Amino acid sequence: MISKGRISEIRKLHLKKFRDQEKLFLVEGRKSVEMLLESDFQICDIYATENFYQEHQGMFGKMAVTMVSLPEMERISTLSTPPELLAVVRQRQNAQPIGEHEPVLVLDRIADPGNLGTMVRTADWFGIRHVVCSPDCVEFYNPKTIQSTMGSFCHVQVHVRDLVDFLKANNDRRALGTFLGGESINEFEFHDNDIIVIGSESNGISVPVAECITHRITIPRGRTNGPSAESLNAAVAAAIVMERWSDR
Amino acid sequence: MISKGRISEIRKLHLKKFRDQEKLFLVEGRKSVEMLLESDFQICDIYATENFYQEHQGMFGKMAVTMVSLPEMERISTLSTPPELLAVVRQRQNAQPIGEHEPVLVLDRIADPGNLGTMVRTADWFGIRHVVCSPDCVEFYNPKTIQSTMGSFCHVQVHVRDLVDFLKANNDRRALGTFLGGESINEFEFHDNDIIVIGSESNGISVPVAECITHRITIPRGRTNGPSAESLNAAVAAAIVMERWSDR
Repeated sequence: MISKGRISEIRKLHLKKFRDQEKLFLVEGRKSVEMLLESDFQICDIYATENFYQEHQGMFGKMAVTMVSLPEMERISTLSTPPELLAVVRQRQNAQPIGEHEPVLVLDRIADPGNLGTMVRTADWFGIRHVVCSPDCVEFYNPKTIQSTMGSFCHVQVHVRDLVDFLKANNDRRALGTFLGGESINEFEFHDNDIIVIGSESNGISVPVAECITHRITIPRGRTNGPSAESLNAAVAAAIVMERWSDR
Repeated sequence: MISKGRISEIRKLHLKKFRDQEKLFLVEGRKSVEMLLESDFQICDIYATENFYQEHQGMFGKMAVTMVSLPEMERISTLSTPPELLAVVRQRQNAQPIGEHEPVLVLDRIADPGNLGTMVRTADWFGIRHVVCSPDCVEFYNPKTIQSTMGSFCHVQVHVRDLVDFLKANNDRRALGTFLGGESINEFEFHDNDIIVIGSESNGISVPVAECITHRITIPRGRTNGPSAESLNAAVAAAIVMERWSDR
């Protein structure tokens, strides 16, 4: 059973304002909650649909779980198809510090929550454990972002920092940025602790951040006659650079 | 001026059923319509906000343009922020045939319109001009798909075909599919007219299609201790394979 008051408290967490205020966020869906249970996040509450709970009681260990009806799950979830599981989770106070040999993905004003989540997921695949977001990036704890990480929000440390400050404080490392006319990623020699900077979907890397870039790299277009795409999706560009970095 | 009747006809095109019936689709946003004007698509109508039209009359040549108010544009558009331009466009009857030396991207049950659009955009960047979708892929003319191609819908020929039929009819070419445990894309030798097969977001390549795959390839995970992502986003995986193909 879940009270009306609790439903409305959870629904408030659909909004950034209340997530910021309460320092909480939502994790929705079976796979994501399973990965959450193995992570170091602090879980406040778990809600399960009755059917799911009956069949999977074992997976929660000592964690108390509240059973809800499907219409209740529909109300507390942000998803159009209600998930079997939803958790209310405490936001991390501080991300773990970045080791000097660790690579970093830096995101400058990424606006689309799906893109941010996909980039965190891809970073996780390639073993990049730290993502630094500019303060004007879309919020990491946005439910769409968390959803599109497909559980990788548990593995990757997300920092919010002024990017110029961050890059200046790390000027003993190389900062790679994608630009038209840079060195081809096919020939570029990547280093273990490179910082990979990806710019916003519509405007690329902002001017003050671009001034901190030490190496300009480019994803070459295919050989073709006639017109081709003007640019790549930001999450696609980030993935291609991370894959090349991973094969260094 | 736009009549109430015309507004409701255009709004019907927000739905697949009516797009199928009328063989029409919508193109929204300045950039996309600009690319549309340079393409071989047949344009039925263009709607422009008054301000935009006053300032950019020249760009339309002999094409008649209907001016609409911002509230009218809001009604006919599928976007939450109304665009400056919207066009009603005839769907292609037949895609151009695939040349024997041309590469092909094959998509098996892609469900997310944004992923499909992003893959078309990425194919365009890398000079892959043909995308073959299974009949159960999300519709190419879905406004979200068209939107996320960022104009590349004008450059790429999209075919809808039974994939087993298609692959059998093209069994003189190699069909590459991504699987765990295949040959690493870092060492794989790509050919000019390879067929690259990408499976659905949730289930990968379906069994009958997998039986037509001639070469199993893999995007290696990063070297890392501890857990990592279980998979990559389908559009990300497609992009990484296309980038490696492009660097053959």
